[in-house]
Amino acid sequence: MAAEEVQTPCLVLDLDALERNIRRMGALCRSMGVRHRAHGKMHKSSDVARLQIELGGACGICCQKVSEAEAFARAGIRDILISNEVRDPAKIDRLARLPRLGARTLCCVDDIDNVADLSAAAHRHGTEIECLVEIDCGSGRCGVAGTDDAVAIARAIDAAPGLRFAGIQAYHGGLQHVRRFEERRAAAAHVTAIAAEVVSALKEAGLECDIVGGAGTGSVLFEGASGIYNEMQCGSYAFMDADYGQVMDAEGRRLDAGTWENALFILTSVMSHAKPDRAVCDAGHKVQSLDSGLPAVFGRDDVRYVLATDEHGEIEDPDGVLRINEKLRLVPGHCDPTCNIHDWYVGLRDGRVEALWPVTARGKVY
Amino acid sequence: MAAEEVQTPCLVLDLDALERNIRRMGALCRSMGVRHRAHGKMHKSSDVARLQIELGGACGICCQKVSEAEAFARAGIRDILISNEVRDPAKIDRLARLPRLGARTLCCVDDIDNVADLSAAAHRHGTEIECLVEIDCGSGRCGVAGTDDAVAIARAIDAAPGLRFAGIQAYHGGLQHVRRFEERRAAAAHVTAIAAEVVSALKEAGLECDIVGGAGTGSVLFEGASGIYNEMQCGSYAFMDADYGQVMDAEGRRLDAGTWENALFILTSVMSHAKPDRAVCDAGHKVQSLDSGLPAVFGRDDVRYVLATDEHGEIEDPDGVLRINEKLRLVPGHCDPTCNIHDWYVGLRDGRVEALWPVTARGKVY
Repeated sequence: MAAEEVQTPCLVLDLDALERNIRRMGALCRSMGVRHRAHGKMHKSSDVARLQIELGGACGICCQKVSEAEAFARAGIRDILISNEVRDPAKIDRLARLPRLGARTLCCVDDIDNVADLSAAAHRHGTEIECLVEIDCGSGRCGVAGTDDAVAIARAIDAAPGLRFAGIQAYHGGLQHVRRFEERRAAAAHVTAIAAEVVSALKEAGLECDIVGGAGTGSVLFEGASGIYNEMQCGSYAFMDADYGQVMDAEGRRLDAGTWENALFILTSVMSHAKPDRAVCDAGHKVQSLDSGLPAVFGRDDVRYVLATDEHGEIEDPDGVLRINEKLRLVPGHCDPTCNIHDWYVGLRDGRVEALWPVTARGKVY
Repeated sequence: MAAEEVQTPCLVLDLDALERNIRRMGALCRSMGVRHRAHGKMHKSSDVARLQIELGGACGICCQKVSEAEAFARAGIRDILISNEVRDPAKIDRLARLPRLGARTLCCVDDIDNVADLSAAAHRHGTEIECLVEIDCGSGRCGVAGTDDAVAIARAIDAAPGLRFAGIQAYHGGLQHVRRFEERRAAAAHVTAIAAEVVSALKEAGLECDIVGGAGTGSVLFEGASGIYNEMQCGSYAFMDADYGQVMDAEGRRLDAGTWENALFILTSVMSHAKPDRAVCDAGHKVQSLDSGLPAVFGRDDVRYVLATDEHGEIEDPDGVLRINEKLRLVPGHCDPTCNIHDWYVGLRDGRVEALWPVTARGKVY
């Protein structure tokens, strides 16, 4: 099928750009001597995860929810970190069954009270759950602050049947989006210092961190070169989005200008043009999350996406150049929650549809 | 199953509140002598649509996309207006097949060039498509401005084989959310005046409007009493949301304080509380659209949802009252794009799960 025949709106992937991004991240992590555990929460696709492992050399994936991990494990992914806490008894029970699907299973812990529940479930199912102690390295969300709590939880994990202490999780989400390179570097240095302090306190307590995990597309160069972190958890690099595009590299260029390519687009059509200077396309709130801003119209500087309603996008078209049924590629503001709305990726290469990939873990939020 | 056992995050419906809302809208429209064509784009559920028809006396439903209409028609809904333009040839072809599924099929037109395409498709499939001319009554989005264009398009529809001119579509979305009653009334009067002018020009041209459609949860009292409109297209009243809750009635009370009840909630659990005054719940961007603001925590004034990230919601808990695994009901900021993310509604009554309804047209955006 020709790309032109695809009905809109839908998510399309430029497969060449995707593969280049995946290869590039693999090379980058190898060059820094660190592993890459690709974040599957971004794409929720077992097909993309497999590419990241096979083509990009990723050691496994991260995800955020037990239901996501179940979907990935059933699709054959063999090494899965839930980079989040699991507290509900029913979810802990499901978590403890994951290794039965053939997947090495890891999760995060930020409360010593969680340890006994995880241990009991692993024991019940005769499985092993590997645990990372989550450190709050400045986000103020989940994670313990201070080395004492981290050491206490790590000791409890180490002593608990069915659990294995595997290291720490120290990710700072806000850091990823700091626009200027030097400011991002300074913020990352602070994060790394916190992680280093915890790793050293754990070592003193006789607890080695096999995994010091964190980093994202915005900060990977810093944690990767830190000598402290050894597992990068980048996700967005594979698809990119309009928000990450505005993050700057060391030379002051946008990250989407050379470092990572836009591989993900919302394909949309013009469906009304009743006002001469304003077109309406078929992509509104229901095909994208606008939490990080409006989408960019890819490859066009003559038109601009200016307003979204539920099913419509309004496009400023000052010269009235857009035609009914003309297709545009939108770069979504934020890829993660946008991908989670869609059922399919339409993979394009050389103007043809090459693949139709389900969003395997779509809606798996529990 | 007890409501307490439901795994989070998920959408739950208070079935009693939902049924009261639906009965109340039915009674209101009957009292004003107008029909109610419930907007299915809000809930995308054939079960809710059926309740609106059977319990609320709705004459049928609206939706926004051909794929939604297909889902509703297949689920047995027999009268469906696509309150939107259909331009893509493949979609026009699908539209023209809809009557074969047993559904009266209506759509909107705002460009005379669209008429021949619709007519040819209806002719090809031996079906009838009823058309409303969409009027721009102030939104500046789709719809023609001015009576001349409206009359010209209506005449073209009337003359086209396979099409039937059914009236006009004159909906103003922004009007719905004007907070103060008197300001909303004044804005609605302007909208109604535009619709009245078009109806009268069409009449002069010998074209009667069987349907003068529009109105929403915020403005239904005005269009309903206008003597011009005869089909109300309210959707959000059935579930309500935090944004509509802030719209005021004639007595200056919030619309969610008596007029319409909150029937839809995101059920969420506290899953981290590592900081004493801030809890983290499991509901972030991936279970809700924040385009109209943050969710409210239902029935609680001691805690407040203050920040969302992809999978987490941060909750200010100044007195540290929240416990791990405690469940909260969030009233979503905007119901429509929130419902479109979820696969299921969990229907609750008297603390028990009574129904599990699929979001029939979830992701049907094309």
